[in-house]
Amino acid sequence: MTRHELTPDWLAHRAAAFPDRLAVVAGGERVSFGELDRRAGRTARQLAAAGVTAGTRVAVLLRNGLPFVILTHALARLGAVMVPLNTRLARPEIAWLVADSEAGLVICNEATGETAGALAQDLPGVQSLSLERLAGGPEADVALRDRIDLAAVQGIIYTSATTGRPKGVLLTHGNHWWNAVGSAINLGLHRDDCWLAVLPFYHVGGLAVLWRSVIYGIPVVVHEAFDPDAVNRAIDTGGVTLISVVGTMLRRMLDARALRPFPRDLRCVLLGGGPVPRSLLERCVEGGVPVATTYGLTEAASQVATLLPDEFLRKLGSAGRTLFPAEVRIDAPGGGAPAGEIGEILVRGPIVMLGYAGRPEETASALRDGWLHTGDLGSLDPEGYLYVVDRREDLIISGGENVYPTEVENVLCEHPAVADAGVIGLPDAQWGQIVAAAVRLRPGARADEEDLKAFCAERLARFKVPRRIWFVDDLPRTTGGKIVRRSILESAAWASQERA
Amino acid sequence: MTRHELTPDWLAHRAAAFPDRLAVVAGGERVSFGELDRRAGRTARQLAAAGVTAGTRVAVLLRNGLPFVILTHALARLGAVMVPLNTRLARPEIAWLVADSEAGLVICNEATGETAGALAQDLPGVQSLSLERLAGGPEADVALRDRIDLAAVQGIIYTSATTGRPKGVLLTHGNHWWNAVGSAINLGLHRDDCWLAVLPFYHVGGLAVLWRSVIYGIPVVVHEAFDPDAVNRAIDTGGVTLISVVGTMLRRMLDARALRPFPRDLRCVLLGGGPVPRSLLERCVEGGVPVATTYGLTEAASQVATLLPDEFLRKLGSAGRTLFPAEVRIDAPGGGAPAGEIGEILVRGPIVMLGYAGRPEETASALRDGWLHTGDLGSLDPEGYLYVVDRREDLIISGGENVYPTEVENVLCEHPAVADAGVIGLPDAQWGQIVAAAVRLRPGARADEEDLKAFCAERLARFKVPRRIWFVDDLPRTTGGKIVRRSILESAAWASQERA
Repeated sequence: MTRHELTPDWLAHRAAAFPDRLAVVAGGERVSFGELDRRAGRTARQLAAAGVTAGTRVAVLLRNGLPFVILTHALARLGAVMVPLNTRLARPEIAWLVADSEAGLVICNEATGETAGALAQDLPGVQSLSLERLAGGPEADVALRDRIDLAAVQGIIYTSATTGRPKGVLLTHGNHWWNAVGSAINLGLHRDDCWLAVLPFYHVGGLAVLWRSVIYGIPVVVHEAFDPDAVNRAIDTGGVTLISVVGTMLRRMLDARALRPFPRDLRCVLLGGGPVPRSLLERCVEGGVPVATTYGLTEAASQVATLLPDEFLRKLGSAGRTLFPAEVRIDAPGGGAPAGEIGEILVRGPIVMLGYAGRPEETASALRDGWLHTGDLGSLDPEGYLYVVDRREDLIISGGENVYPTEVENVLCEHPAVADAGVIGLPDAQWGQIVAAAVRLRPGARADEEDLKAFCAERLARFKVPRRIWFVDDLPRTTGGKIVRRSILESAAWASQERA
Repeated sequence: MTRHELTPDWLAHRAAAFPDRLAVVAGGERVSFGELDRRAGRTARQLAAAGVTAGTRVAVLLRNGLPFVILTHALARLGAVMVPLNTRLARPEIAWLVADSEAGLVICNEATGETAGALAQDLPGVQSLSLERLAGGPEADVALRDRIDLAAVQGIIYTSATTGRPKGVLLTHGNHWWNAVGSAINLGLHRDDCWLAVLPFYHVGGLAVLWRSVIYGIPVVVHEAFDPDAVNRAIDTGGVTLISVVGTMLRRMLDARALRPFPRDLRCVLLGGGPVPRSLLERCVEGGVPVATTYGLTEAASQVATLLPDEFLRKLGSAGRTLFPAEVRIDAPGGGAPAGEIGEILVRGPIVMLGYAGRPEETASALRDGWLHTGDLGSLDPEGYLYVVDRREDLIISGGENVYPTEVENVLCEHPAVADAGVIGLPDAQWGQIVAAAVRLRPGARADEEDLKAFCAERLARFKVPRRIWFVDDLPRTTGGKIVRRSILESAAWASQERA
C-alpha cells in the first residue's frame, strides 16, 4: 500500500496556530510550540550543514530530554530517517544496531560521546556528532520540508527482542498519525490534556507521546529517567492528565505514594509492556487508579488495543478493544478463531509498519495479506475485548498440553514469599518440554522448591506445575518491562549444570 | 490525488466493539449501535433487491429521522452514491437536482411520496421507491461491503446556491473522515459526548454529525425539524454536549429560554451558516453560551476553521483557526496576502471535495494546484485566526471602493428598530455600483429611510452608507441561514419599479 498523503508539518502547523502554547516541559525548561518550531528549524539547518539529507539514516544515542524532542522534528524536516538507540545497551550491542540500521551518523551528547566515538572508530563509514558540536556549527541555507508525507519513513525503531536479535521496524509518519488518532478516539481528547513521557523515546511507547503532543497540540512533560518520586510529584502538581508506563514503574509509583490517591486531573494511566500481574491490577482497583491496560507493539506504532479506565473492573485482565480503525483477529488452525479461543493475534490497518529494515524474508513472514502476524497469543471475547496470553515462542508444550508461562508466573507471584517469577520450557526426552521456573524471593522471605510446587499444585492442572524451580537474585526484563525468557533459559542451563 | 485507503465499515466496527451503546435517539426511538448495524444491513439488502448496486446514484427525499440515518449507512455498504435533496424546495427545483445528479432512483416516504411520484413520471428513467415499500420488500442475498474506501464517493451534496444554480459536490468517505478527525482534535472528544442534529441531513453541516457519531462512537440525537423549545428541552434533559446550529436557530433558542442558562454539560454550540451578526455574538457573551463560531462549506465536508468557546471573547467575530491538518491561505493579487489583508479564502487538505459532479470546468476553476478556491473573502490575523468577510460575488465596488455588505448589514441591525437587513449593490451609471439595503423592521417598530441613512452615516464611511433603503416583510435566507442576495436584487428591481 503506497499512500502519498501530504499534511502540513505538524509542529509548524501548531506553531503557526498557537505559538505561545506550552509544548514541552523538560529539565527545568518550558518551551512553547513557537520556540520548539524555531529550534527544530535551526537544528535541521545545522544537520544539513553536517551532511544530513533526505533519506539519511541518523542514529540517535540520547536519553529522554528536550534535545531528543527537537532532533525528532528536525530530522523529519529534512526527510531523514531517525534510528533511536537504547542507551542502556552494552557497546557491542549498540555497534550491532548501528551496523544493522546502516546509519552513517550517530548523534550523541556528553553522556554518550565516548560510546559514539568508539563506534565511529570501530565501524567503517560511521561518524559521531555531538549535540554540543552541532549547536556550535553553521546552518546550511536549505529549504526545509513544510509538509509531512504520511507514506514516508520516520524512523527505524528496534524491537526489544525478547528472543533472537532485535529487528529494525520501519515506521512511517502515517503509522504515528493513525495511532495518535485512534488513541484519541478511544481515550478521548481534552483541551487541557498534558502527557507525561517517562518511557524512553527509543521505545515506541515513548516516541508515540512526542507525536501525539504535536498532533493534538498538547504539552508533553519529559522525564530523563524514571524516578517514582519525580513522577508522583509531576502528577500531583504538574497538571499531568495522561501518563504511559509499564507495570514495574506503576508498582514503584504506588509503593512510593503509599495510600495517597492520585489527583482527579490524572484521567488515564496507560499501562503497557506486556501482561500485567493480577496483584498489580488489584492494587489499582483498590487505589482507584484510572488505569488503561494496553496491548501495543513496535510493529503497530504502539497501541493496538486499550481497555478504558471505566471498563477496567468489568474486564479485568483484558487489553481492551481495538483502536479504531485498526482491526484485530485471532488466527487459529483453519481460519479465524471463535470467541474465547486462543490463537495468534493478527493486526491490520494504517498503524501497521512498512516492514523490517533490510529483512525481506522476516517482513514477508510478518506481513501476509495486509495482516501483521504479531507472534503474540491471545483471544477475543464475544464483546471484542482482547486478552493477551503470551508470546507464541514462549508457549510450552508439555506432553501435548499447552502451558502459558504467564499463567504459571501469576500463580507463583501469588505466593507471599515470591517477588517475581519467570517460567520457561526445558527440553525433555519424555514430555517434549517440561515447565521450569526461576523465582526471586522477597527480601527476608523463605520458601523452598517443594513449598512452591505444592502451592502451584493446589491451583494449577498437574501438567502446568513447574517440575523444576530455582532461585535467582534478579530476573532479566527489557526496559519495556517484559521478561526476557531467553535469558532465563541460559541461566537455567547454568543452574541445572550447577545442580548436576 | 487517488488514495485507496481502506478502513473497516465504521458502523460495523462500532457495533462489534460496543453493540449496546446508544447510537441514535430519534422520534421516540433509542437505537443502539448493534441495532443500527442490523437495520442498515437489512436495508442494504433490500436496496440491493430493488436494483441498487455499487456506483448507483440514489436521491434521498426525506426529512431528518432514523430512516435517513439507516439509509446513509445502507447505501455506503453497497458502495452506492447518496444524493440527499432539500425537502423544502419546490417540485421543479427538485426535478432539476435529480436530473442534474443523474440519479435513477428517488427514495421517499409518505410525506414526500407525491413529489417523488411526480418526478418519476416527468423524468425519463427515474423511479421512486418509498421506504414503506422498501421495508416490505425482499432482501437480496448479496455480500455487503465490510470496508470503507476513503477514496470512494459517499455522496453528492448540493450547495445551497446563494448565486446561480446549485452545484453537486462530490464528497468522499475520506472527506468526512478527515473532517471528523480534524473537528475532534480541535474541539476535543469526551467519552460522554452526545451530538444534537437539528440541521438538515441534506446539508453537509447535518450530514457531518451522522458520520461523527460512528467515527467517534457517540450517540446522535436527531430532530426532524427545528423547534426551539424541543431543542432547549433536549439540551436541558437529554445529555446533549454538542449541537450544530445556524444563527437564526440560536437566536430563537435564546429567545425561547429567556435568561435560563444552558446546563454545564453542553460544552459546545457549533455556530455555522455564514457571518454571525454582532448582536447575536454579544448575546452569547452575556449569556455565557459556549459558542464555537465556524467557517465551513459543502466543498470541504463542513468545518474548515472553528473558534473555540474559550477563545470567543478574545477573538470575537473570528471563525477561529484552521482544522488540523487542513490549511487555509488568503489569496491576494500577486500571491499570499499579508496578515490582516482581505482576499479569497483558499483551502487545502484531505477535507476538500473531489470536484463538482458533471462540471469539469467549474471543478477546474475551483480546484487549482490542490487549493480549493472558495469564493469567500476573508483575512487571517497574525495569530492565524480567520475572519470571514463576504462572498466574493457579493462584494460591492462603488466608485472604486470595496464595500462588504455584511459590515453594512451589521450596522443596520444595530438600529433598535431593525430586525434584519440585506445589503446589495445596484448598478449605477456614475459609481459602477451603489449600496442598497432591504430592511425588515421589528414588529411595531418605526423608522424611515432617512433615519436609517443618518444612523449609518454616523457609523460608516460615506461610500458605505446605503443610497437606497426599502422595507420588506421577510428576507430570503437559505436553510443554512445565509442571506440570498440574488433574491434581494430581484425584489429590489421590483421595489425600484414601484417607486418610479
